[in-house]
Amino acid sequence: MTPTLTVFERSPDQGRGLARDMRVRWALEEAGRTCEVRTVGFEAMKDPAHLARHPFGQIPVWEEPRAEGPPLVLFESGAIVLHIARDCPVLLPADPDARARATAWVFAAVDTVEPPVFDHALLGILDCDQPWFEVRRAALEAAIAERLDRLADRLGEGEWLDGAFSAGDLMMVTVLRRLNGLPLLADRPSVAAYVARGEARPAFRRAFAAQRAQFENAG
Amino acid sequence: MTPTLTVFERSPDQGRGLARDMRVRWALEEAGRTCEVRTVGFEAMKDPAHLARHPFGQIPVWEEPRAEGPPLVLFESGAIVLHIARDCPVLLPADPDARARATAWVFAAVDTVEPPVFDHALLGILDCDQPWFEVRRAALEAAIAERLDRLADRLGEGEWLDGAFSAGDLMMVTVLRRLNGLPLLADRPSVAAYVARGEARPAFRRAFAAQRAQFENAG
Repeated sequence: MTPTLTVFERSPDQGRGLARDMRVRWALEEAGRTCEVRTVGFEAMKDPAHLARHPFGQIPVWEEPRAEGPPLVLFESGAIVLHIARDCPVLLPADPDARARATAWVFAAVDTVEPPVFDHALLGILDCDQPWFEVRRAALEAAIAERLDRLADRLGEGEWLDGAFSAGDLMMVTVLRRLNGLPLLADRPSVAAYVARGEARPAFRRAFAAQRAQFENAG
Repeated sequence: MTPTLTVFERSPDQGRGLARDMRVRWALEEAGRTCEVRTVGFEAMKDPAHLARHPFGQIPVWEEPRAEGPPLVLFESGAIVLHIARDCPVLLPADPDARARATAWVFAAVDTVEPPVFDHALLGILDCDQPWFEVRRAALEAAIAERLDRLADRLGEGEWLDGAFSAGDLMMVTVLRRLNGLPLLADRPSVAAYVARGEARPAFRRAFAAQRAQFENAG
């Protein structure tokens, strides 16, 4: 009854672990769990078979067989990570209020910080020849800078966003990793150190190595 | 020990209930709960007092006093709605797998559907004189159309996204309401009917009336 995680057949980031399955792989490693990996090609993502698993034809998808009845099929990396976290005290503390606050950070990662970070990355790929490129880049960088400054304020001298490491940190670090190598992150040493702290966790390193090996084997 | 919900002092949508506190107000009505409302002005949102409650200086904020110890302070509308939903079977079913699926729809609303919908609304306000306006509008409308088509496929003949009404529908309807009056939504009758079905719920109507009364009293 091993769960199955569906990921890109060939990650567009060349094995840098930026696709959203990385969050699930990392959460599984923190929880000491394993899964089967199914790959899906870009063209097959809009096929009925994949759309039946993921209504928007994206990755990741999580499928967990049940002894009776249909498997649990989940999409949205935040929801999958919270599902795995439910039974894993490293990812969600026992105290109900602390769990709710960790959940708030999971949403903050995907809902408040990721949109400008992801749009900034896409802009550099899709629109660098467009006449509006510089104006839009400046606007997105201002939005990212503002969010990073607020994150730095909240982190203060702390290691993680709210006491011990949680699923909220896991999600936030995977979002911020996309800024590695950019002045936006490097100019905020406490946030850069926070990202590096996440990437140094043994569970992160194992998950990163697994997605990297998959990328290299697909090459 | 009444909780407090922090909302905009003057909603920028002229009482149309599009700000993110509407989700929390609606969830509270579904759950038969009440709260105190605190308002915050645009300038005060970046003050230390508000940033202590909300790390990114936004709304809504949820504060729930505890008999012992500090209050629970939550931000991110998705996290607040899930917190309220935990003890409300109308918003989250008892079956753990169905709860996880409802949670996936909460994330889909804020993470997959809302970004292009919100950017499209902002573009019309901020950038309508910019030379790239038409190109960007077309790109965002294509992204929205694709998501709405996938939502229509998933809805099929169903009333709600996954069986009974849940917090996932509540969140999705509040995101889609921003498209009311646009051909993007009107051209997809099953999705438009889904939005109207959400807006017809007595709990929605009570929450809408409350935010509307607050807007009118602030005028």
